[in-house]
Amino acid sequence: MEKKQVEAITARDVDFAQWFTDVVKKAGLIDYSSVKGMFILRPYGYAIWENMQAVLDAEFKKLGHENVYMPMLIPESLLQKEKDHVEGFAPECAWVTYGGSEKLEERLCIRPTSETLFCEHYANIIHSYRDLPKLYNQWCSVLRWEKTSRPFLRHREFLWQEGHTMHATAEEAMEETVRMLNCYADFCENVLAMPVVRGVKTEKEKFKGAEKTYTVECMMHDKKALQAGTSHYFGDGFARAFGITFTDKNNQQAYPHQTSWGVSTRLIGGIIMTHGDDNGLILPPRIAPTQVMVIPVAQHKSGVLEAAGALRSRLANAGFRVKMDESEQSFGWKAAEYEMRGVPLRLEIGPKDMEKGQCCIARRDTGEKTFVLLDQVEETVRRLLDEVHQNMYDQAKKNLEDNTCEAQTLEEVKTIVNSRGGFVKTKWCGQLECELKMKEDAGVSSRCMPLSQSGTKGVCPVCGKLCTTDIYWGVAY
Amino acid sequence: MEKKQVEAITARDVDFAQWFTDVVKKAGLIDYSSVKGMFILRPYGYAIWENMQAVLDAEFKKLGHENVYMPMLIPESLLQKEKDHVEGFAPECAWVTYGGSEKLEERLCIRPTSETLFCEHYANIIHSYRDLPKLYNQWCSVLRWEKTSRPFLRHREFLWQEGHTMHATAEEAMEETVRMLNCYADFCENVLAMPVVRGVKTEKEKFKGAEKTYTVECMMHDKKALQAGTSHYFGDGFARAFGITFTDKNNQQAYPHQTSWGVSTRLIGGIIMTHGDDNGLILPPRIAPTQVMVIPVAQHKSGVLEAAGALRSRLANAGFRVKMDESEQSFGWKAAEYEMRGVPLRLEIGPKDMEKGQCCIARRDTGEKTFVLLDQVEETVRRLLDEVHQNMYDQAKKNLEDNTCEAQTLEEVKTIVNSRGGFVKTKWCGQLECELKMKEDAGVSSRCMPLSQSGTKGVCPVCGKLCTTDIYWGVAY
Ligand SMILES: [Zn+2]
Ligand SMILES: [Zn+2]
Repeated sequence: MEKKQVEAITARDVDFAQWFTDVVKKAGLIDYSSVKGMFILRPYGYAIWENMQAVLDAEFKKLGHENVYMPMLIPESLLQKEKDHVEGFAPECAWVTYGGSEKLEERLCIRPTSETLFCEHYANIIHSYRDLPKLYNQWCSVLRWEKTSRPFLRHREFLWQEGHTMHATAEEAMEETVRMLNCYADFCENVLAMPVVRGVKTEKEKFKGAEKTYTVECMMHDKKALQAGTSHYFGDGFARAFGITFTDKNNQQAYPHQTSWGVSTRLIGGIIMTHGDDNGLILPPRIAPTQVMVIPVAQHKSGVLEAAGALRSRLANAGFRVKMDESEQSFGWKAAEYEMRGVPLRLEIGPKDMEKGQCCIARRDTGEKTFVLLDQVEETVRRLLDEVHQNMYDQAKKNLEDNTCEAQTLEEVKTIVNSRGGFVKTKWCGQLECELKMKEDAGVSSRCMPLSQSGTKGVCPVCGKLCTTDIYWGVAY
Repeated sequence: MEKKQVEAITARDVDFAQWFTDVVKKAGLIDYSSVKGMFILRPYGYAIWENMQAVLDAEFKKLGHENVYMPMLIPESLLQKEKDHVEGFAPECAWVTYGGSEKLEERLCIRPTSETLFCEHYANIIHSYRDLPKLYNQWCSVLRWEKTSRPFLRHREFLWQEGHTMHATAEEAMEETVRMLNCYADFCENVLAMPVVRGVKTEKEKFKGAEKTYTVECMMHDKKALQAGTSHYFGDGFARAFGITFTDKNNQQAYPHQTSWGVSTRLIGGIIMTHGDDNGLILPPRIAPTQVMVIPVAQHKSGVLEAAGALRSRLANAGFRVKMDESEQSFGWKAAEYEMRGVPLRLEIGPKDMEKGQCCIARRDTGEKTFVLLDQVEETVRRLLDEVHQNMYDQAKKNLEDNTCEAQTLEEVKTIVNSRGGFVKTKWCGQLECELKMKEDAGVSSRCMPLSQSGTKGVCPVCGKLCTTDIYWGVAY
């Protein structure tokens, strides 16, 4: 039998990494395949991704984007057209060298990202300012042959979406870059209950080939940073490399300006590590595959299953994602199982509740139980799901704020990193040397320069130079 | 400028293959990439696939299936576990031999289909009869390194879905196989307006590794056959090869029984060749990305754009997929453009219509125009879309019936094939030799043995043996 007994998982404070692995495995999100670093997304894990996709895809389309599908293979010569880009990605490409029994004349890499494919296509279809903007997006998997791997956080193959847009002017492209960054930030906060820091990456940390990389950075329960999504501004660098030109309104030849942006199944890792507790997953209600699990109490008693089934139907009709477990397992087993799986609300109904015309709803986030009159079930569930979301967000926000410290000197940074961890906010002079020194001495990388800058003056903790830029440092996944 | 003038396309009767290529290119469904046989699905083409996915996915889920995602790479040793299967697919696998700069110890093929991956996973998760059935489906792309390629009909990489299910008994697995075949048949007929012949493949034509392959066969406008979807029954062959066992209700070890089933973007090729005419695409209303195109007439005149915009909004609010073209292009250009793109209904409104409180709706399938009172627009559009669907289905059904001939002798078969083409229905003795001879002499392959068998007796047209099996022959894509 597929293992169904609810086994204990490692406590977060004992071994956070092991806790994470326990949760993804025992909640049935992931299984291992025979190829290292390539994971199987099981129904429960994939359903979370589907729910994320549905929300994001609708958002993208509302903003005018269209979906396309590009080939998964890139000829080596095409990948090499943009110098920085190939340097960044070639070392981790998987290469196809044979088609059937025939050796290929040119080897092909499985896409690690598709800028080059989109640019080749754009060169064919962009000719006039009337063809702009082009707002394309693609849902697909990409492959990066990394040395180490962890479920959701670092897969050799992972599912994502990649937006690739072309615009007539630099201003428009920059607006798009920021628009999509904000789209991701809103999604993280309003749908995943994950508060973010919106910011810009340093030159060192930006995407290979981009002029500017925007990022949303989240703090996990263990106070490490997770880069949840990025949005890149390319200027006309790729357009020049790929010979993409258009006739502008003044009948002049011009290069279009480009963006790309993406989020991946890594977000699932993010919600696990932001919200989960020692009893397992806690899923944000707006993407939980099951929002309400109905569990009949003393289900052998007359009328219980019917009453529970009626509630399930009513909630389904009201548009909630609801399931009922009427299996032979004990009530205790079921309660623990759906706690492990992070179902936001558990609805119980038994003979005593029926007498009183009520049911009991237990929240996964707080454990709190509420008795609800049967005719108020729909409105209560709606309200509770919103409250669960808000509480999860507030908890995560508190974690982020409580664990973000300001520092003026390198010594202070080191003390914070070694004692309590979390994000350290400092000033930065903008020099690569200081950024490298911070990594070397304090073990932190720059996370981002937040979009909301204080504007105050201060000193770079490394070189002591007077400067204004605020920057976040942290240890990242 | 992206080419927008409406160019003439080759007539179907002059060169059907060229007509097809013209249509997919000029309607903006497909573009070529730099890798032979790998195509770009442009927004209009991909949107058709998305609409197909939405309907099918909901149908699959209603039947209890769950989506998963398996890795795209299969180790050679895993592919080789089932003998017939590897023989069928190894010759057309694309092989990954390098990860970064490192030569792999074992080469990996990009999945041509995923039976082996699902079986490896099922071996991990199926232990008891309580774990069955497993009803998994996957949406992904697969790769087959074929020599020739044609848009939609034969891609080296194509998008599809592959269902893979495991059942406690042979009966249940066989029921699932037929259920999914009927699911595809209903989808083709009720959604794509493509009438089908439901049947079973011969031993020669069945899927490599399957015990039995069910198929839905459609007839294109040029009277050739298109295999639109297949559903396979595997028995316990793979289960034995992969060591998948479970404890049954009597506490005995047993092998589960398996199915797989799939449809792909090939269906888009099917609807183009079933419904299109010399003016371009004709899209079935239920999957058309745009069901109604609103075109303002004399749009510079006061109030026209507002009136047209109001109609567009009303139709969008009523749940139709509707767009408006208010570009500078002439009315004639727009009419021809959306005819080429196969939009089922064109709604025109100009100053004269406004005076009369009406608009004009033109059908793509018949060209028929109807004047509609403005307050009846929603109900008329709803009715017309259904009528367009029904008429498209009826036309295709007539084409299928008019071009299906019965024959008793090989000579008759040859005469039919050489004179008028289409499907030939005969009796068949069941021998491979007769099937091969039919191919050799008449140039036709067996399409299927229809599920609805007449039960009458007759002679095999090749060997003359008395037999009862009805079978369809044809030239296939
Ligand atoms: Zn400095
Ligand atoms: Zn015969």
